[in-house]
Amino acid sequence: MPAKVALICGGGAFPVVAANAAQARGEAVFLLGLRGIAGAEIEAFPHAWLGIGQLGRAFEEIGARGIKTVCFIGGLKRPEFTELRLDWGGIKRIPEIVKFLHGGDDHALKGVIKLFENQGLQVIGVDALAPELLAGQGDMAGKLPETLAADLAFARHFLTDLSAYDCGQAAVVANRRVIAVEAVEGTDSMLARVAELREKGRWRPKGRAGLLVKAPKRGQDLRVDLPAIGPDTLRGAEKAGLRGIAVAAGGVLMLDRAALAAQAERAGLFLHGFVGEAP
Amino acid sequence: MPAKVALICGGGAFPVVAANAAQARGEAVFLLGLRGIAGAEIEAFPHAWLGIGQLGRAFEEIGARGIKTVCFIGGLKRPEFTELRLDWGGIKRIPEIVKFLHGGDDHALKGVIKLFENQGLQVIGVDALAPELLAGQGDMAGKLPETLAADLAFARHFLTDLSAYDCGQAAVVANRRVIAVEAVEGTDSMLARVAELREKGRWRPKGRAGLLVKAPKRGQDLRVDLPAIGPDTLRGAEKAGLRGIAVAAGGVLMLDRAALAAQAERAGLFLHGFVGEAP
Repeated sequence: MPAKVALICGGGAFPVVAANAAQARGEAVFLLGLRGIAGAEIEAFPHAWLGIGQLGRAFEEIGARGIKTVCFIGGLKRPEFTELRLDWGGIKRIPEIVKFLHGGDDHALKGVIKLFENQGLQVIGVDALAPELLAGQGDMAGKLPETLAADLAFARHFLTDLSAYDCGQAAVVANRRVIAVEAVEGTDSMLARVAELREKGRWRPKGRAGLLVKAPKRGQDLRVDLPAIGPDTLRGAEKAGLRGIAVAAGGVLMLDRAALAAQAERAGLFLHGFVGEAP
Repeated sequence: MPAKVALICGGGAFPVVAANAAQARGEAVFLLGLRGIAGAEIEAFPHAWLGIGQLGRAFEEIGARGIKTVCFIGGLKRPEFTELRLDWGGIKRIPEIVKFLHGGDDHALKGVIKLFENQGLQVIGVDALAPELLAGQGDMAGKLPETLAADLAFARHFLTDLSAYDCGQAAVVANRRVIAVEAVEGTDSMLARVAELREKGRWRPKGRAGLLVKAPKRGQDLRVDLPAIGPDTLRGAEKAGLRGIAVAAGGVLMLDRAALAAQAERAGLFLHGFVGEAP
């Protein structure tokens, strides 16, 4: 069976999980691992390795297999231009690449999608490939406390407004107060900061308080860089003394939804998937 | 000479500096030190000590001296309700106090001002008491690089939008990208985070890059909790590898403007005071 979808694989466990899920649905996949970034586990599938600037090579590997569809999956640190080690296919596209390396991450990623589309390829999101990897709707673990509904609404409006600046996929809010905002540091680091704020007495609620809210940026292309939560996020939320986590249903990656829900239940955290525009 | 202004003194060096500046201008001052928060140096002036919940006592001390004007000066950690140890004057005002302890810091501080105004007192800002303690206009040290003008404008719009959520008196921006946003952690801690992002390779500019932008929240009452920069802020910006600092002229406290400018020059940082609405 010839491969139908090429997965461009970044770091973390998602590429292999997505490949397995796609295969389970009868989809033949070909994995293109980014060298130094993707894990060796991808070699369990039909695959090739690729330097991050080897655009020409990427298009060759994909074209040679008659593949028309690609999906980006897994974490990727934003590269600096000088680290790209462009091959000829990359060099030809320098003007396009330089343009999208300015500005926020979202801008950069839209540029990457465009490069692939200009090559006649269809870029699909994880929702099309393996929808079961995305957050579900409503209470996935525990129950969103009624008293936190206002905080959730506040946080969603806040994140929506931040989106205009290509910043902020996550924030911690308690009692209509922004405790922490995520920019470049990442969610885990932000949660560690909240735990520290508590230890140092800069934030002093009684007992568990507040919640982590995570969502794609408004207008974000869901075909790349979806926000994700995993076991570390739950551990971080627990250490930060939060009451739970709310994520955008269908817009946040969850590696093994059932396992995360079980972990949340054990930790006494609620895990909630919200839908639609901020109320 | 009877005192004309009561300074309600929080922590740090600003209360004494402000008291000295006011005296130098011929203004007689009376200092009310918040116990456990203000430094013993305030005892060099006519003074009294006060627990943070002793509102009745505060109004008595002020009234007994025929003082009609108060000015809040110095840092203050947001207290929890149970730590307030209210005296009778505080207990009588519990409904008002409870109302303003919900929500962001700015909301809380507006409530404190209101309590004093309801007592018939005029609350003035540092700008009225000692304008030389506030940031000046234009280049105070070095020169704002032309290439950073767009980043400054971007950061100012960003901070303005965040203001609606009573969050974000400061951010670090580089190349139209938000590197870090301040919430509860404070500016020094945010700058330390940026230095760490560099060390860990999560932000990898070549050489010095970006700037710290700090301003009051839009619509913030400038009579309390003005943002401030000091020697630590400059050291933090240097360690974070920034190119400089831009602050709202007249809206940011600078303890010894001349000394800070000299420190910035030595560190090769620009120090710029911007005016008006975000362009």
